[in-house]
Amino acid sequence: MAADPIQRVIHALSRLPSVGEKSAARMAFFLLNQDPALTQELAASLAALHGSIRLCGECANLSAQDPCPLCAQPRRDPRLICVVEDISSLMAIERTGAFEGRYHVLHGLLSPLDGVGPDQLKVSELLSRLSRLLSAEGDWGAEAPSRVEVIIALPSSVNGNATTLYLQQLLRPLGLALSRIASGVPVGTTLQYADQVSLAEALSARRPL
Amino acid sequence: MAADPIQRVIHALSRLPSVGEKSAARMAFFLLNQDPALTQELAASLAALHGSIRLCGECANLSAQDPCPLCAQPRRDPRLICVVEDISSLMAIERTGAFEGRYHVLHGLLSPLDGVGPDQLKVSELLSRLSRLLSAEGDWGAEAPSRVEVIIALPSSVNGNATTLYLQQLLRPLGLALSRIASGVPVGTTLQYADQVSLAEALSARRPL
Repeated sequence: MAADPIQRVIHALSRLPSVGEKSAARMAFFLLNQDPALTQELAASLAALHGSIRLCGECANLSAQDPCPLCAQPRRDPRLICVVEDISSLMAIERTGAFEGRYHVLHGLLSPLDGVGPDQLKVSELLSRLSRLLSAEGDWGAEAPSRVEVIIALPSSVNGNATTLYLQQLLRPLGLALSRIASGVPVGTTLQYADQVSLAEALSARRPL
Repeated sequence: MAADPIQRVIHALSRLPSVGEKSAARMAFFLLNQDPALTQELAASLAALHGSIRLCGECANLSAQDPCPLCAQPRRDPRLICVVEDISSLMAIERTGAFEGRYHVLHGLLSPLDGVGPDQLKVSELLSRLSRLLSAEGDWGAEAPSRVEVIIALPSSVNGNATTLYLQQLLRPLGLALSRIASGVPVGTTLQYADQVSLAEALSARRPL
């Protein structure tokens, strides 16, 4: 049955994350019932995906351009750098519309058990990017403290915390402002339904009023 | 951003059933992290989907061949016909391995509110198929009752019941055996957790022991 075009589509779709055999079949029959143009556009967009995508030399974002559209926006502060795990995190922060700096995508988290060390992440790229920024500041003869700030926006998980700690120790000597996004009770959640860990975190990270 | 290849894939994937913007993004980044061959196979299988698929002239199954692989199997009894709503139902019954007859795919259910009448379904194809079968039986000069059986395997829903009733009235005069798949309490479910309607159905359709 592998030569059957429907089975072939179902098999290919079922390799996508959280798509099982049944969802894949539903998708395939949905496509068969729709205008063939929809399927053709999906096929064409997928065919073009890998060929045209590269890493932005500045922030390691995936994009068809280098520098990526975010690094190419002059209104974004180049001295405010938000370090994220992956492009999904970048897109989540972009959706808030609350960040006007640049990003740096690590493409993963430290995970010794899976053999992921700093060399597998875009850590050396971050270091050379920061030293370029800091030396540019030095050229201006600034006496004031550095205005470069790194915001670490990694998840509050075992690997996320380990990576944050590693970056903290690595970047501390550079003399730039270093911060981490706040953890706590999600906005709009009643305390009753907040998970214990987030609530404990919210207590210990309380802010004076 | 529509020209961006990643956004284009995300947009195309998000038109699939039960795939939202976030799932589509996760799928796109999953594909970017995998071997490009996976994406290319998905693209190629989708591109080939519509072009090579036609309706089986016998049972209205979708297939690259006509007759479809199921109708082409000589061991399947051509006089036992299971009427199903769509290909997903057909595949569900095939997975049981418990049916050795042929299928007839209606491609929908009667739904007056959505403007779906018998002409939008493969009803006339079913009638002409059955009359061909019955006249072949007549040619053999059989005195015995017809050995053609139609099993209606449509869902127990408003539209499913309406379609079953319609087919029942249409096929009754043909003098063939007519049945409907049983509704009732799912196997392995305790009565406590069975829904009321299925339980009531199971009571009224009780079988003598």
